[in-house]
Amino acid sequence: MKLTIEDLEDLGRGAAFLGTGGGGDPYVGRLMVERALRDGHRLDIIDLDDLPDDALVIPTAMMGAPTVLVEKIPRGDEAIKSLRKLEEYFGKKAFATMPIEIGGINSTIPLVVGARLGLPVVDADGMGRAFPELQMETFNVYGVSGTPMVITNEYGDSTIVETRDNWMMEWIARGVAIRMGGCAYIAEYAMTGREAKRTSVPGTLSLALKIGRGIREAREQHRDPFEALIALLRETPYEYGRVIFSGKIIDLFRETTQGFAKGRVKIQGVDGSDEVMEIQFQNENLIARVNGEVKAIVPDLICILDSETAEPITTEGLKYGQRVKVMAVSVHPIMRTPEALAVFGPQAFGLSEPFRPIETLP
Amino acid sequence: MKLTIEDLEDLGRGAAFLGTGGGGDPYVGRLMVERALRDGHRLDIIDLDDLPDDALVIPTAMMGAPTVLVEKIPRGDEAIKSLRKLEEYFGKKAFATMPIEIGGINSTIPLVVGARLGLPVVDADGMGRAFPELQMETFNVYGVSGTPMVITNEYGDSTIVETRDNWMMEWIARGVAIRMGGCAYIAEYAMTGREAKRTSVPGTLSLALKIGRGIREAREQHRDPFEALIALLRETPYEYGRVIFSGKIIDLFRETTQGFAKGRVKIQGVDGSDEVMEIQFQNENLIARVNGEVKAIVPDLICILDSETAEPITTEGLKYGQRVKVMAVSVHPIMRTPEALAVFGPQAFGLSEPFRPIETLP
Repeated sequence: MKLTIEDLEDLGRGAAFLGTGGGGDPYVGRLMVERALRDGHRLDIIDLDDLPDDALVIPTAMMGAPTVLVEKIPRGDEAIKSLRKLEEYFGKKAFATMPIEIGGINSTIPLVVGARLGLPVVDADGMGRAFPELQMETFNVYGVSGTPMVITNEYGDSTIVETRDNWMMEWIARGVAIRMGGCAYIAEYAMTGREAKRTSVPGTLSLALKIGRGIREAREQHRDPFEALIALLRETPYEYGRVIFSGKIIDLFRETTQGFAKGRVKIQGVDGSDEVMEIQFQNENLIARVNGEVKAIVPDLICILDSETAEPITTEGLKYGQRVKVMAVSVHPIMRTPEALAVFGPQAFGLSEPFRPIETLP
Repeated sequence: MKLTIEDLEDLGRGAAFLGTGGGGDPYVGRLMVERALRDGHRLDIIDLDDLPDDALVIPTAMMGAPTVLVEKIPRGDEAIKSLRKLEEYFGKKAFATMPIEIGGINSTIPLVVGARLGLPVVDADGMGRAFPELQMETFNVYGVSGTPMVITNEYGDSTIVETRDNWMMEWIARGVAIRMGGCAYIAEYAMTGREAKRTSVPGTLSLALKIGRGIREAREQHRDPFEALIALLRETPYEYGRVIFSGKIIDLFRETTQGFAKGRVKIQGVDGSDEVMEIQFQNENLIARVNGEVKAIVPDLICILDSETAEPITTEGLKYGQRVKVMAVSVHPIMRTPEALAVFGPQAFGLSEPFRPIETLP
C-alpha cells in the first residue's frame, strides 16, 4: 500500500481517535510526513505477512509529554538517528520500521523515518492504541526485549539503554527523556519479522486510516459520523463501539508531572440532566464513571469527540464548555488476554476496578 | 609501584583527606580492594610518564550520593562492566584505568578494576580532590570528551551516553544514576596516553598514600599529626596547608537532594570563644566562613579532621559535639587556572565570592 499526502489528514484523525486522548498532537506529525513526501520521498506500507521471518524490524517513536511536544516541534531526523544507532549496534541494517503505538503522533514518526530512509513501514503496532509507558506494549507482553534501545534529542545527544527488564527500560529512559527536555526520539524493541508477527497488533495503520476516512466521508455525505463509526468498527477486530455519554465539559484538571499529562475532566449530561461523567487520564483516558459507576475502562478505548463533527479531542485540546460525545470501543483480542491486562490493564494505572469489556458494561 | 594490603588503610585515609568531606566512605572502597588482593590479584600503579602516547586509558568510578553508597555496598564488578562496554564500543582493549577523582571511594574503584582485570592504574586523576559533578574534571577543562560514557548498576543494567557537551553528560548520567537507585558505576573520559598526560592532575594516588601514611606515622611517633601534615604537603604540589579553625560542632544540616548530600555545619571555637565557623557543602566542603569572612574556598581543600588524631571526617560522618580542626590546603596549579576555575571554581557552585588562594587569605 502507498500512503499519499491526501491520506494523511484521515490517518491523523484516526490516530487521534485511537490515541484516546493521548499520543500527542497528530497535526504536528502530519506536517512532518507531509514535508517528507513533498521532498519527493515515497511511503510504502507493508503487511505483517510480507515481513521475512528473519528480517530486522526497528520500531521508532517519540517519548515524552505531548504537552511539551507541541512547543518543541521536531525536525524529523531525531528518530532516524536513534534507528541508525541501533543498526550500528547490531551491525545489521533494518528491513523495516513500524509504530510502537498507533495513537497520535507516534503513528506518524515511523512514517517520517520510513519515507526519508526508503524503509517500508509495517501495518501494525505494539499498543493498538496509545499508552503512556514503554513496557505497555504487546511486544513486552509477549516476550520481546525492549533493549538495547536508543534515545536521541534534537541536539543529537543520545543514550543507549540496556537491561533485561522492560520496566527498568521505561524507568531509565523516562528519566533521560525528561532531562533531554521532556521529549525525545527512540528506537526500541528491535526484533525479527517472526517476533513482529507473533507480538504485534496487526493492521492498525490501515485501521487508523479507515476510521479517519469514515468520519470525514460521513460528514461530507451529511450522515451521522457516530453511526458511521460504529458500523465501520463492526467490520474490524475493534468490533464493538458505542456512544456512552453526551454533554458539556464543566470541569477540567490537568498537570504535567513526572513527564506525563495527568488529570481528569467532568462532563455534564445534555438538556439539564444532572448526570456527570468523570474521565480520569494519564496522557490517555483511563476510566469513565457516572456517579461512581464504571462505564468504560482501560485498555478499551475511551474517546472524547466533538459532538457535531466527531473530531477526536486530545487531552491537551480539552476546553471548558466544549460539547462532546464519549465513545467506548472494544480493543483487539490480543490486548485483552490475562498477560496483556497484567501489563496495561486497570491495575497498571493504580485503578482498583477490574477490567470489564465494554460490551458487558451497562 | 606495587600497592599492598598494608598500604590500603593509609591510602584510604589520604583519599578521605583529599575528598574534603565528599567522595564516599573510603572504608567501603578499601574492603573492595582488599578482597581483590586477597583473591590473589596484584595491583600495579604506573606513572603518567610510563603511559604510551597512543595507549587507550579508560577511567572508572562510582557516581551518586555517598550517603546512598554506604547502604548499598558494591560487589566490585559493576565498574568492570562499564569499562568492558567502552572497550566493546571502541573495539579496542584498555591499556590502563585511572581515577577520575582521588577523593574518597573513587580513589579505590579503579584499583578494584585494575587488580581484577590485570590492568595498571595510572598515578593521577581528573579532579585532584573530590567534586560532585562529572564535568568538574581537568579532563573536561582541557578539552577531552567525557562520552561515550557507560553507567552500570548492580543488576547489570547499563546505559551508554553520547553528547558533545560534558555538562549534558553529567545532567543525563545523573538522572540515570538516580533512577538506577542513587548510586551507579561509570567509565568515562576514555582518552589516549597523550591526552592523559596533558590533562590529568599527576601523582595523586601517591599523594593520597603519603598523606595517609604521614598522619599514621605522626600518631605512632607521638608527634603532632597536623604539623606533620603541613610539613609533608610542603614537599608536594599541594604546597600550602594550615589549620584555619579549631572547635566543636554545634549545628549540622544535611539532606540528600537531587542525588547530592547538601548542607552546612557550624563549628564553635574552642575555650569559650564566640567565633563560629560555618562550612557549606555539596558532597564536598565548598566554603568556610567566620562571621561572614571567607577563610577558604573551593577548589582549595577544606578538610574537617578529628582534633586529636587528624582522622579526616566525611560529610556523612559529621556529628553534633565532635571536636575538630579544619585544615585548608592549596591545590595543584593545574586546578587553579582561569579555565579550571570556570569549571569548578566558586561560581560553579552558585557561590558569589571569587576564588582566593588560601595562601593569600588572612
